[in-house]
Amino acid sequence: MKLYTYPPAPNPKRLDIFLAEKGIDLETELVDLMSKEHLSEPYTLINSWGTVPALVLDDGMVMTEVIGILSYLEDLYPEKPLMGTDPLSRALVLSWDHRCFSEGFLAVAEVLRNSAPAFAGRSLPGPVSYEQIPQLVDRGQKRIQTFYSVLNQHLEGRDFMVGDHFTVADIAAFVFIEFSGWVKARIPDDCASLIAWHQQVSTRNSTQN
Amino acid sequence: MKLYTYPPAPNPKRLDIFLAEKGIDLETELVDLMSKEHLSEPYTLINSWGTVPALVLDDGMVMTEVIGILSYLEDLYPEKPLMGTDPLSRALVLSWDHRCFSEGFLAVAEVLRNSAPAFAGRSLPGPVSYEQIPQLVDRGQKRIQTFYSVLNQHLEGRDFMVGDHFTVADIAAFVFIEFSGWVKARIPDDCASLIAWHQQVSTRNSTQN
Repeated sequence: MKLYTYPPAPNPKRLDIFLAEKGIDLETELVDLMSKEHLSEPYTLINSWGTVPALVLDDGMVMTEVIGILSYLEDLYPEKPLMGTDPLSRALVLSWDHRCFSEGFLAVAEVLRNSAPAFAGRSLPGPVSYEQIPQLVDRGQKRIQTFYSVLNQHLEGRDFMVGDHFTVADIAAFVFIEFSGWVKARIPDDCASLIAWHQQVSTRNSTQN
Repeated sequence: MKLYTYPPAPNPKRLDIFLAEKGIDLETELVDLMSKEHLSEPYTLINSWGTVPALVLDDGMVMTEVIGILSYLEDLYPEKPLMGTDPLSRALVLSWDHRCFSEGFLAVAEVLRNSAPAFAGRSLPGPVSYEQIPQLVDRGQKRIQTFYSVLNQHLEGRDFMVGDHFTVADIAAFVFIEFSGWVKARIPDDCASLIAWHQQVSTRNSTQN
């Protein structure tokens, strides 16, 4: 297997924390998003959609979706389970990972991609150019605040997003919060449960980079 | 368990086809989206986010994300697996389900929610009102066409989205195509593989309603 990635970006970061938690060491090649390596050959020959990460299996099969890559690695490296251990926890991990993506990551991306000059014509990931839509910046900021509240309410009385140990759901929520800092959003002071949980996750070895 | 749903809508439809494929019969209550039952009590006491479906477990726990509900039911009713049977197929089912959601469903929703008068102030699901943004209508239509091409290319030489039998990935892709018809999008004639696959899936008992 060979991993193509750029850990500072949010989707690669999810995978990076997972690998660190599991102690998995993969052959890795960096794809420099800053110099737009992901949008041209040779990388687009590996992943024509131009996103990172991409995991290339030994038979040449390419996986490009983080949730699929996590599921694959969880099956191959079952020790220290991070995707639930019974029907309910498995379901809740997938559910929260999905909500963190659709209500969290996409909200931050809406702000970043529609405001930063570096994303001109790159309002969405993928091979097609889409112009920035300035109204999405305000909408995205409101969505971020709403999702802080959702997470805060969920974390009241809990140490982890799902069950009683760290999972992919914690990773997704943590990376959402880190990513929201890129667009100068900040957890409101009244979200005490979210702040306390975030401080705890921030102390883990896997989240230090 | 009790299911709250409205099968004509795309996310409920994914679950509905899954239940039909498995032959699972759940106690069900319809939440009429047309009369906005999902946006007020008593439904918002069950799911404060106001989306359907919601699955209420016997202990009162509520699941609101389709991918989580599918995972839960797949574990409880393992016969006729629909989410993969080995590390690779499980990973690919989750990957394609995710792509169909993020590149397919969200594209159609972008068109529908930002153009239809019935969605005024409802540019996104959830409890917060967001005004329509007309530029998203064109963008969504382009994204739909792009995703038809992605699916068509993937389906070249294949009978199913993943492996050699029907899975949740086929369900997601099929419901995307049905949903895209709501905004008058249509698979282009040159997408022969996608058209042939869609015709096959359309003949299944599970997709007749």
